[in-house]
Amino acid sequence: MALFKIFVLLRFLLTTVLVNGYPCKHPSSVSANDFYFGGLHLMGNTSNPFGSKVTPVYVTQLPGLNTLGIALARVDFAPWGINPPHTHPRATEIMTVLEGSLEVGFITSNPENRHITRVLCKGDVFVFPVNLVHYQRNNGNTNAIAISALSSQNPGVNPIANVIFGAKPDIAPDILAKTFQTTDEDVCNLQKKF
Amino acid sequence: MALFKIFVLLRFLLTTVLVNGYPCKHPSSVSANDFYFGGLHLMGNTSNPFGSKVTPVYVTQLPGLNTLGIALARVDFAPWGINPPHTHPRATEIMTVLEGSLEVGFITSNPENRHITRVLCKGDVFVFPVNLVHYQRNNGNTNAIAISALSSQNPGVNPIANVIFGAKPDIAPDILAKTFQTTDEDVCNLQKKF
Amino acid sequence: MALFKIFVLLRFLLTTVLVNGYPCKHPSSVSANDFYFGGLHLMGNTSNPFGSKVTPVYVTQLPGLNTLGIALARVDFAPWGINPPHTHPRATEIMTVLEGSLEVGFITSNPENRHITRVLCKGDVFVFPVNLVHYQRNNGNTNAIAISALSSQNPGVNPIANVIFGAKPDIAPDILAKTFQTTDEDVCNLQKKF
Amino acid sequence: MALFKIFVLLRFLLTTVLVNGYPCKHPSSVSANDFYFGGLHLMGNTSNPFGSKVTPVYVTQLPGLNTLGIALARVDFAPWGINPPHTHPRATEIMTVLEGSLEVGFITSNPENRHITRVLCKGDVFVFPVNLVHYQRNNGNTNAIAISALSSQNPGVNPIANVIFGAKPDIAPDILAKTFQTTDEDVCNLQKKF
Amino acid sequence: MALFKIFVLLRFLLTTVLVNGYPCKHPSSVSANDFYFGGLHLMGNTSNPFGSKVTPVYVTQLPGLNTLGIALARVDFAPWGINPPHTHPRATEIMTVLEGSLEVGFITSNPENRHITRVLCKGDVFVFPVNLVHYQRNNGNTNAIAISALSSQNPGVNPIANVIFGAKPDIAPDILAKTFQTTDEDVCNLQKKF
Amino acid sequence: MALFKIFVLLRFLLTTVLVNGYPCKHPSSVSANDFYFGGLHLMGNTSNPFGSKVTPVYVTQLPGLNTLGIALARVDFAPWGINPPHTHPRATEIMTVLEGSLEVGFITSNPENRHITRVLCKGDVFVFPVNLVHYQRNNGNTNAIAISALSSQNPGVNPIANVIFGAKPDIAPDILAKTFQTTDEDVCNLQKKF
Repeated sequence: MALFKIFVLLRFLLTTVLVNGYPCKHPSSVSANDFYFGGLHLMGNTSNPFGSKVTPVYVTQLPGLNTLGIALARVDFAPWGINPPHTHPRATEIMTVLEGSLEVGFITSNPENRHITRVLCKGDVFVFPVNLVHYQRNNGNTNAIAISALSSQNPGVNPIANVIFGAKPDIAPDILAKTFQTTDEDVCNLQKKF
Repeated sequence: MALFKIFVLLRFLLTTVLVNGYPCKHPSSVSANDFYFGGLHLMGNTSNPFGSKVTPVYVTQLPGLNTLGIALARVDFAPWGINPPHTHPRATEIMTVLEGSLEVGFITSNPENRHITRVLCKGDVFVFPVNLVHYQRNNGNTNAIAISALSSQNPGVNPIANVIFGAKPDIAPDILAKTFQTTDEDVCNLQKKF
Repeated sequence: MALFKIFVLLRFLLTTVLVNGYPCKHPSSVSANDFYFGGLHLMGNTSNPFGSKVTPVYVTQLPGLNTLGIALARVDFAPWGINPPHTHPRATEIMTVLEGSLEVGFITSNPENRHITRVLCKGDVFVFPVNLVHYQRNNGNTNAIAISALSSQNPGVNPIANVIFGAKPDIAPDILAKTFQTTDEDVCNLQKKF
Repeated sequence: MALFKIFVLLRFLLTTVLVNGYPCKHPSSVSANDFYFGGLHLMGNTSNPFGSKVTPVYVTQLPGLNTLGIALARVDFAPWGINPPHTHPRATEIMTVLEGSLEVGFITSNPENRHITRVLCKGDVFVFPVNLVHYQRNNGNTNAIAISALSSQNPGVNPIANVIFGAKPDIAPDILAKTFQTTDEDVCNLQKKF
Repeated sequence: MALFKIFVLLRFLLTTVLVNGYPCKHPSSVSANDFYFGGLHLMGNTSNPFGSKVTPVYVTQLPGLNTLGIALARVDFAPWGINPPHTHPRATEIMTVLEGSLEVGFITSNPENRHITRVLCKGDVFVFPVNLVHYQRNNGNTNAIAISALSSQNPGVNPIANVIFGAKPDIAPDILAKTFQTTDEDVCNLQKKF
Repeated sequence: MALFKIFVLLRFLLTTVLVNGYPCKHPSSVSANDFYFGGLHLMGNTSNPFGSKVTPVYVTQLPGLNTLGIALARVDFAPWGINPPHTHPRATEIMTVLEGSLEVGFITSNPENRHITRVLCKGDVFVFPVNLVHYQRNNGNTNAIAISALSSQNPGVNPIANVIFGAKPDIAPDILAKTFQTTDEDVCNLQKKF
């Protein structure tokens, strides 16, 4: 009996290959569902401190995206909600506004640190180049909705505040105090919030 | 006077570099408009034999996409309109339905030629892997709208019927007659339509 | 006894890695035969409706090609035989004529759909860029032979007629009727042939 | 006379090609100096708020690196000096300590935000994977010296504090206040420092 | 008059882009000849010390290959002629024998330095992986002909003997004497031959 | 008991993936030691015929480098020691001199075979482009130390003399005699030394 289960496991091992950490099916065994995801018309829950919610359709949610280098996401914003400054380590993002209006921006690399910013209305499209810090803010009193495409099936996300002040374990406070030219106490207060 | 114009031209040549055939600006001279495109909320004109219209946001329309490997498009469908079988030579496509419902499909490579197909409703997402022949059809009595992202800033498109029967100059009819196992006359009739 | 077999299987699993779906041997265990294929001097059997036959030397036939990004094929043509319009989703093709003469062509992407065509004689070389629809026809009364190299170990092939009219299951006839601006009946007749 | 100058300019234009924004010489015109840079044994000036100094040997300093995908840098640290949290948008970094000892760390992507940290002594080597936030601190009373290699000829650098609080023009204070869950006043004070 | 010539030059500059150092034409201006090369059926002249001759069809000979990552070559061998040990810095090679028979081999990297070797007859195919030292020898009393495909439009070639003993200017003899564990005199004699 | 061991093996198989032939850990199971290597301050043993020693920090020594495309090495030279002519099949090398002085060079591809050479002192940096034959020689009476970075985690090395005269089994002497335009006897004597 146990042997039988082992054989089943072995058969699984012999037929399922992981690529980029995700299963890669043989073409003869794929079906339409491997390329399908449902529910992107549903509003995300924006009841959180930032007032925004990202609904990802990445390789984790849609396995057929593996190796294809693209993904989608829906972003919902409560009035004045923000998608705080973050980077995608492996993807450029192109966003279009479906409802409402957004103030968006990205910052170019050092030493210029140019802040490229614009207000977007319904039907507007904007590009956030790979690895640059960027953000969006709903600058209106109604909900806003955007659809973003990303140039990786697994784009990753590094929200700056969470990475810096929410690292586990904490970064030594004196390093961050020197970084932000503030006090250890200020840093510790921030670290408690993340 | 002429010399002055030459110098202006030379200065342009010295400061503007073409990459992939499109201008590549120096980071210090870009502005928000280089990353912006407006009007994707506008319905495309579907008054054509196929009853569909693609509104592209590729590098031609949005120069800041150059080298970033991603693009968007809006696709409008009249009732029962089709986006006929085509390939994108350089891109995978991921599509989400904003309004209406679509019957979609792609065909895997020879010798299997498997037809992977599904009906999509509002909020559904589907992936068309790079270079496979695919199509969409509005399977309802109302307009349908979809947003597609493509994994290239310049995805290209080869609509099969146009490429085969609309090549300029025509492909020799006997080649196509043998290909489709039909008559030269049938082929000539098709070639007149494209 | 059963345990022993399991260990053998496990040992196999631990030492054989699949890359791109094909085995990837450790350098210390390869031999000359892993890089060898025999028989490309043998004529392919062209007794089929197209009057041509491709003899592939891809990664399936020559495992040592895996990851190396190149492959060969021999193409035989009966008098007036054709290699019907097709695409290679992952490869450019460069062909040289060993015997006879060929009329060859490819079609550029939409919207130009330019038909680039030429007659090739013995010793002539022609390039079919990646993903463009292309074909060859023997334009003489003797057999013709060509050697093609492809820029992928697994180039794939999508013969247009087979993909469109031979998809399994069939594409809905009304979609193809609208595509080719013909009748459902014409489409069904074609679908029966593929 | 003016015509002569124009021809010189034209000749320059015809013979000098820019690749990635940097000149790409013809192989027959390169000399050893194109592949050479001198002075990496010289200590960088660490008299600044961070107490550290990066001396880059990137494509800007060593033109022959263009297209070769690698670069070096020397990093000097005053006692307790820090190289504050930053990302390289296009490069992994591998660092070895030549003198002194360093406390180093990087933080993995959201949602884990794991802080991977270690103390390095003379002769130790550490890797900072591409695009992850990382930092170094001299944890001793003597100067420290490190040599880093980066997997791009033009790795770029985004020091988090400068990018967020030193963007030009400033990011709207209320966006950063919400991001760091602090007050607009705190944000404005930080923005004045960068 | 001079101005007119300048404008012609400028027009050329504005419309011709160099990619990889070779012209890259706009799709609308290409013709069949850009993808064509003639004469690969002609025997190369093997009257040289090695008794072999490579006839290349690289991007230099066939401009349409630019960016397509593939090329062809014909190799002729006099009886017992050799194609001496060499590397291709940018390409894997796949060879098929059209006439005669060849002894071929390649050597794997240090420290194993395994010599993988085989005799090839008409119709045999063999792969020489990218960057490994390889050679061929006609092991018969008749001429031999082979067709090779290479996985780059510009594969390059480094014949070991020419590179080591024919470098211009010479490598210091004592370096080569130590390398080959022989005398400076032996090295100088070899350097005179190349 | 045996079954338990099998399950442990299976669990290992299910959780450890090999990428490029090296283990690829899940992000949640990595620790600082996966990114660490110690001992690059230790002098290599140069008591060998070449008078030099390479201490590699490649993916074999530092597993966390896998997929990251970079590596380090320390090279020690006894007085007048050489690092004999070799190629790295997968990497460009950038070297900086920590102690002593070196004469370095590389040779460009056929047919130019240009010898690009320079003397380097402490703090000098030099680039050896991917796949070109290159060497270094200590041109002084004291030890010399250099740090090299390579643009691959697994750069490989092909020392010319070892590959040509030390292949296992030997390359046929008459092939090498013709290659170097010398006698079979000379070749056999060289083959005995490697």
